[in-house]
Amino acid sequence: MALNVVVLVGGVGGAKLAFGLARILPPEHLTIIVNTADDFWLYGLRICPDLDTILYTLSGLVDRTNGWGVGGDTTIALDALRRYGEETWFRLGDQDIATHLLRTGWLRDGERLTTIVARLSAALGVRQTILPMTDDPVATMVTTAEYGEIGFQTYFVRYRWQPVVTGLRFEGIERAAMTPEVQAALERADIILLGPSNPWLSIDPILAVPGLRALLIARPVPRVAVTPIVGGRALKGPAAKLMVELGYEPSPEAVVRHYGEAINGFVYDRSDGFLSLPLAHVAAFETIMKFDNDKIYLAQTVLEWIKSWVSLQV
Amino acid sequence: MALNVVVLVGGVGGAKLAFGLARILPPEHLTIIVNTADDFWLYGLRICPDLDTILYTLSGLVDRTNGWGVGGDTTIALDALRRYGEETWFRLGDQDIATHLLRTGWLRDGERLTTIVARLSAALGVRQTILPMTDDPVATMVTTAEYGEIGFQTYFVRYRWQPVVTGLRFEGIERAAMTPEVQAALERADIILLGPSNPWLSIDPILAVPGLRALLIARPVPRVAVTPIVGGRALKGPAAKLMVELGYEPSPEAVVRHYGEAINGFVYDRSDGFLSLPLAHVAAFETIMKFDNDKIYLAQTVLEWIKSWVSLQV
Repeated sequence: MALNVVVLVGGVGGAKLAFGLARILPPEHLTIIVNTADDFWLYGLRICPDLDTILYTLSGLVDRTNGWGVGGDTTIALDALRRYGEETWFRLGDQDIATHLLRTGWLRDGERLTTIVARLSAALGVRQTILPMTDDPVATMVTTAEYGEIGFQTYFVRYRWQPVVTGLRFEGIERAAMTPEVQAALERADIILLGPSNPWLSIDPILAVPGLRALLIARPVPRVAVTPIVGGRALKGPAAKLMVELGYEPSPEAVVRHYGEAINGFVYDRSDGFLSLPLAHVAAFETIMKFDNDKIYLAQTVLEWIKSWVSLQV
Repeated sequence: MALNVVVLVGGVGGAKLAFGLARILPPEHLTIIVNTADDFWLYGLRICPDLDTILYTLSGLVDRTNGWGVGGDTTIALDALRRYGEETWFRLGDQDIATHLLRTGWLRDGERLTTIVARLSAALGVRQTILPMTDDPVATMVTTAEYGEIGFQTYFVRYRWQPVVTGLRFEGIERAAMTPEVQAALERADIILLGPSNPWLSIDPILAVPGLRALLIARPVPRVAVTPIVGGRALKGPAAKLMVELGYEPSPEAVVRHYGEAINGFVYDRSDGFLSLPLAHVAAFETIMKFDNDKIYLAQTVLEWIKSWVSLQV
């Protein structure tokens, strides 16, 4: 019998691990719980960047250079928006717009985001379960030295995460409900992974859904995070810069301390040498996932290692 | 001093006359009041087919073969919607989507449709005034023998106006307010034209905006309709078929009777020979507008004729 694996992810980094896991696990045994605090409205469209990255990655549609968006997509609508005098700092691909249109139409019809993601997944032949962390709107708000408090996409895309971050909050998180699907997935998980996503921007919103972190901590199963920090730098995006700005050393240790009780195992990169981390289960692997083989290798290695230290039956 | 001309229109047919008028009048003296009862929601987008046809026509972006949509537009988003398993009977061009996105976003921000159309016009360099008949949502509902009551676009696009129509109503029209801009345009108009649009589907909704028809009738100026029926047939679309189904003879006479007091002049096509119509001011011209020259010719001829019978100063 295969184990049930749940992985918590943000966008591109987490998608790589999810891709690797999807290649080695039966689809019905893999559930990906995705950050939705980056979701936002643009021109009346509800855009869910992390969900789409996972959806496109698992369906094979993803742009393999960027790691997000649809491969070979055009920007004809975006160019027409520019003709109207719009600032077009968020790249809306034409194929991508189809996803946003469907989702927005269905949301308008009163459908849950969870159901919508399931419909999109089914239509694209994705058999793994992709779950938004909640059906309720949550918005990461970033306090910056330069612009005061701004929305996540403004910080991340418009200003290319260059502003100095002095604080973060997840607007609406206290009213966000854990979905029955997320709860069931966590309750029946044999292994829970936290992807190499940004702990503060991608994983924290998931853990902040009321009851979710407590449920995680209560589960007597391996709960293993994969480091997003290698050699004091982030593999991608603002994780390391953000950690410094928030007063942390950009190191695996700081990530482990930040996750606290939520994890009982940690995987860091071999290139960081020996690290003494305050956890019973720690391993150093090749964590940088450049090619598909790297993703499959890491997924396989992490799962094998976890199975070895908990002596689980496969 | 130039005369102020106001023309009431639906989509393609009315756009041709508006184009002709735009070529011969100073832009600040031409106001186009446009039917919005065909407007509808699709995938969370507010789509205004008639307004867009006028906007694209006057900006020169229009697809010159169809008479609607943006010339050379692609359907990459639409193809991606089809990949998701959607029925894609309404053609959404990619450039067109930009218009819908902007409009929908601004509506969501609480802007009036009138202001939105003005912004889109300005961005595309259209200097004539395009006014929606109202800022409030109105929806033409079509009762058909085959499908019961259906929305206008379902009737018109999905079923290509083939169902037998037994009734029409404009949902929301009793709560639709005439805008200050429409009222002012009508009040200062020296000439009011009703374009060769479908009287029942395109012009009636405009006249049905509470107070609008009464204001029109009260204006002591030429109010001239251009026939949409030539040789017992509609120039385009379902006008003749609809008239028969609703119990009318598809003739200029029936159109004149239908408009009643709203008009005091009528232009029909020369090919219909001599017609005795119950109006003081009637003229027969070449009304079929195939090429740009035809549109300019008709606009010029109609205006010259009106000026001759009312002895207005130009």
